[in-house]
Amino acid sequence: MTVKVYMNEFDVIEKYFRPLTQGRDALQDDAAALDVPAGQELIVTSDTSNAGTHFMADAAPGDIAHKVLRVNLSDLAAMGAKPHAYQLNIAFPNKPQEAWLAEFTAALFADQKQFGIFCSGGDTTTINGPLSISITAMGFAPKGKALRRSGAKPGDHIILTGPVGDALMGLRILQGKIKTDDDNYFINAYYRPTPRTAHIETLRTHASAAIDISDGLVADVGHVCKASGCGAEIKIVPGIFSVPARKVKINAEELLTGGDDYELLLAVRPEESAALLAQLGKEGLSPVKIGAFTESPAITVLDEKSVPLSLEKSGWRHF
Amino acid sequence: MTVKVYMNEFDVIEKYFRPLTQGRDALQDDAAALDVPAGQELIVTSDTSNAGTHFMADAAPGDIAHKVLRVNLSDLAAMGAKPHAYQLNIAFPNKPQEAWLAEFTAALFADQKQFGIFCSGGDTTTINGPLSISITAMGFAPKGKALRRSGAKPGDHIILTGPVGDALMGLRILQGKIKTDDDNYFINAYYRPTPRTAHIETLRTHASAAIDISDGLVADVGHVCKASGCGAEIKIVPGIFSVPARKVKINAEELLTGGDDYELLLAVRPEESAALLAQLGKEGLSPVKIGAFTESPAITVLDEKSVPLSLEKSGWRHF
Repeated sequence: MTVKVYMNEFDVIEKYFRPLTQGRDALQDDAAALDVPAGQELIVTSDTSNAGTHFMADAAPGDIAHKVLRVNLSDLAAMGAKPHAYQLNIAFPNKPQEAWLAEFTAALFADQKQFGIFCSGGDTTTINGPLSISITAMGFAPKGKALRRSGAKPGDHIILTGPVGDALMGLRILQGKIKTDDDNYFINAYYRPTPRTAHIETLRTHASAAIDISDGLVADVGHVCKASGCGAEIKIVPGIFSVPARKVKINAEELLTGGDDYELLLAVRPEESAALLAQLGKEGLSPVKIGAFTESPAITVLDEKSVPLSLEKSGWRHF
Repeated sequence: MTVKVYMNEFDVIEKYFRPLTQGRDALQDDAAALDVPAGQELIVTSDTSNAGTHFMADAAPGDIAHKVLRVNLSDLAAMGAKPHAYQLNIAFPNKPQEAWLAEFTAALFADQKQFGIFCSGGDTTTINGPLSISITAMGFAPKGKALRRSGAKPGDHIILTGPVGDALMGLRILQGKIKTDDDNYFINAYYRPTPRTAHIETLRTHASAAIDISDGLVADVGHVCKASGCGAEIKIVPGIFSVPARKVKINAEELLTGGDDYELLLAVRPEESAALLAQLGKEGLSPVKIGAFTESPAITVLDEKSVPLSLEKSGWRHF
């Protein structure tokens, strides 16, 4: 870690950020030294989140902390990797306030405890612009066993670890565009997605490809199809949306392309499908089979009556 | 890597950023999988650089690329670590222009070749503010052999791998504050510091502690003293500044506290000192012994006539 020269920055680091290293003293040197267990690969991912773009400019510091860290842990989960540590780079628009720092780091610390990780270093800077946070998360997977986007085959079932669209509902509520009976549920889905870390062994055992739903279900299916050289047929089955979402009159196509869900989309060999669904159910999830990968490169989305949706009109231009 | 949804972003990634992965296809999955060689520790460091704060807002894209990557490699060198890969997170203030991207990525590619690294992933976003780049660099060091700030002992010699102050001269020139006969030399020192990667084996063999000079020589000596529980006495010997710098009438105290030099400051046992100086000289550097660590916790800087400088007046408030 290289510390830039700003007033009181060292005090801020000592008081608020060093405790996040949990006694490993990783902020004391120019860089952190991490041991990678024998037989494991290092899995690394980075996400940047900027105020006004990736979270509301007036978001509570705890909500920001949970979101920016968890979107990274979700990428590790999509690889079937156990999280280990993270680098935290924050560009502050102003000198940070102590109350903000206290709430922000308390939320990080809670997530460190929940997901078994620590902060291995980072950088604090100032920026003549909005708050910007870059996290690089590091985890481990057994060598050669990490889940890839490229592992899907035609005929593989497409399974979600849970419903999509709740995060978009939360965003719409935060933007003042809609009002529901379950506002807190949806806002929580937006700010506190649950990375599927607790299920990685089950995923590595039964799934052949995975991706986390960050761009939107249809776009992310497209990423798997592109990497695997196949197409997909998806059906809007009831379980694709949550019970609270089904109570709200909202365009299904919008929910399918909203992004920020951080459930995982899995490719699963047909003979593994029942075992995976059963095991994820036992583990407390509500997984749902929504279709299958196809030889044809097209991506088709069928509505509840099995009528293909007209994707051209729906702004799904990313594949 | 999670790809956010912006117009043409995927095309930008395909054309400009994927080639930086050098065929390892690291941008295809949610995260990169890296193999850590047996017997090696993973060394990780992060630095964020923001336009207008860490580089001039009108800097050439190649200059920005070299600087943001090399400051990270310098941290690895300070740990005695061989660089391996880096994560690249860029927040663009606008849709990036192709000419800018071409020059920026060409410079990264040149540095990848020079330093034996590749881009393992990252994130591209937009920000309602200035260009902001966060890099997390990863390298390897033999287990337990990484250099630390905490390894200095009273009596250890303080050795620099080269002169300090040139980067500050470059910044002053870029700011239009001074004009010299060697403007290009100084500007190059500011934008293209040379991480001391080529010398890490020599450093691990002979040095007992190291730090890179990013905050300024005096502040960074302070970091080593704090971590090692000792003080230091530094003397302004001629070799502490470069030959071009010595031709310019500029306040020595300013050069000593300017930062951005990215030479390494080393603690070296007295019996190792001659061998280290000789070997670094053979390797093409101009190392210079500038003092020694002390039992007394004070940090004293002596001028050319061995008169202590009054640090209180010099704004060195970081320790």
